[in-house]
Amino acid sequence: MFVLSGPSGAGKNTLLNAVLERVPEVDYSVSATTRPSRPGEIHGRNYFFLSPERFRQGVEAGEFLEWTEFCGHYYGTPRRFIDERLAEGKSVIMDVDIQGAAQIKRQLPQVVSVFLLPPSMAVLHQRLLARATEGAEAIRRRLNKALLEVKALTDYDYVVVNEDLDLAVERMKAIISAERHRVGRMDCQRIIDQVTRGNV
Amino acid sequence: MFVLSGPSGAGKNTLLNAVLERVPEVDYSVSATTRPSRPGEIHGRNYFFLSPERFRQGVEAGEFLEWTEFCGHYYGTPRRFIDERLAEGKSVIMDVDIQGAAQIKRQLPQVVSVFLLPPSMAVLHQRLLARATEGAEAIRRRLNKALLEVKALTDYDYVVVNEDLDLAVERMKAIISAERHRVGRMDCQRIIDQVTRGNV
Repeated sequence: MFVLSGPSGAGKNTLLNAVLERVPEVDYSVSATTRPSRPGEIHGRNYFFLSPERFRQGVEAGEFLEWTEFCGHYYGTPRRFIDERLAEGKSVIMDVDIQGAAQIKRQLPQVVSVFLLPPSMAVLHQRLLARATEGAEAIRRRLNKALLEVKALTDYDYVVVNEDLDLAVERMKAIISAERHRVGRMDCQRIIDQVTRGNV
Repeated sequence: MFVLSGPSGAGKNTLLNAVLERVPEVDYSVSATTRPSRPGEIHGRNYFFLSPERFRQGVEAGEFLEWTEFCGHYYGTPRRFIDERLAEGKSVIMDVDIQGAAQIKRQLPQVVSVFLLPPSMAVLHQRLLARATEGAEAIRRRLNKALLEVKALTDYDYVVVNEDLDLAVERMKAIISAERHRVGRMDCQRIIDQVTRGNV
């Protein structure tokens, strides 16, 4: 199970889409949110778009692995969706903010956390402006948040600087592949049996 | 710093050569040995071929990070060679047996250890026969040793099964790349300064 965090505009969505396309054994953990959908976003694929009432019900029922509030909207990770994917033997990758990542790490220490950084704050600012979905005030708040967030990278397992998308995708793929070959995550007895079976 | 172990015939040398060719930031740690050189092996590249007297002097002088004796020959890892490469900012990969890997892990816990497995003992036997550099008795000893060694894989950080060379090379490359992006191995303060410099 992988967690990807990073400031808005670091390129998380683009990176995630590229990784999901190229690594078939990884599924995206669709988050729930109460924020309005942006053009092109699909319910059940980008987010589960919930009403504030429905979201609060879910929080009370313990349906979320983590949840947070930002800019007046709720964001949360539905527990059932992830459990179903893991039961299928898939890896799941989640896009959560640093508070969410910390909440998840406390509950599931085996989660691998990756922090995606923009090459600089100037680039981040440009990307947020280019997105053109938010006003100057919202962008200013996101930049201020980003400045604080960058310092949290020391709490993560890996850090990837997104100066070039293809390079960042390759690094993310390497992290996923490597972690799937960690001795602690593999059924070592099965491997030993398989290798030594029917011999000597 | 990476350590690669695995039974003789698991394909360590072939894998290492392919990795060294494709990953420029990694250097091979040339071991010292008192065994006779095989056809094509070059002193200072495949091994430092030493006399037993010279090897024993080195052991007494603390020149080896680890050393061991197998089939009547000594094998050791020269400390100076590795220190020089690390000082250049390179990663170093070492081919050592399980006792050597355990010795190195005790001295340098940050070392990343990878265990390379053959797909089966039958395949291992075929590979040792095909190599045709040793007699039946030496091959039998190597196979017996391999059977015991396989169980040591749980002491390693990663396990790679070498059923296909290209796949094994890709996995090894992924492990090296991922480990170079571990937060614990990076200068996080430098990264934070670089990203936040000159803004807001």
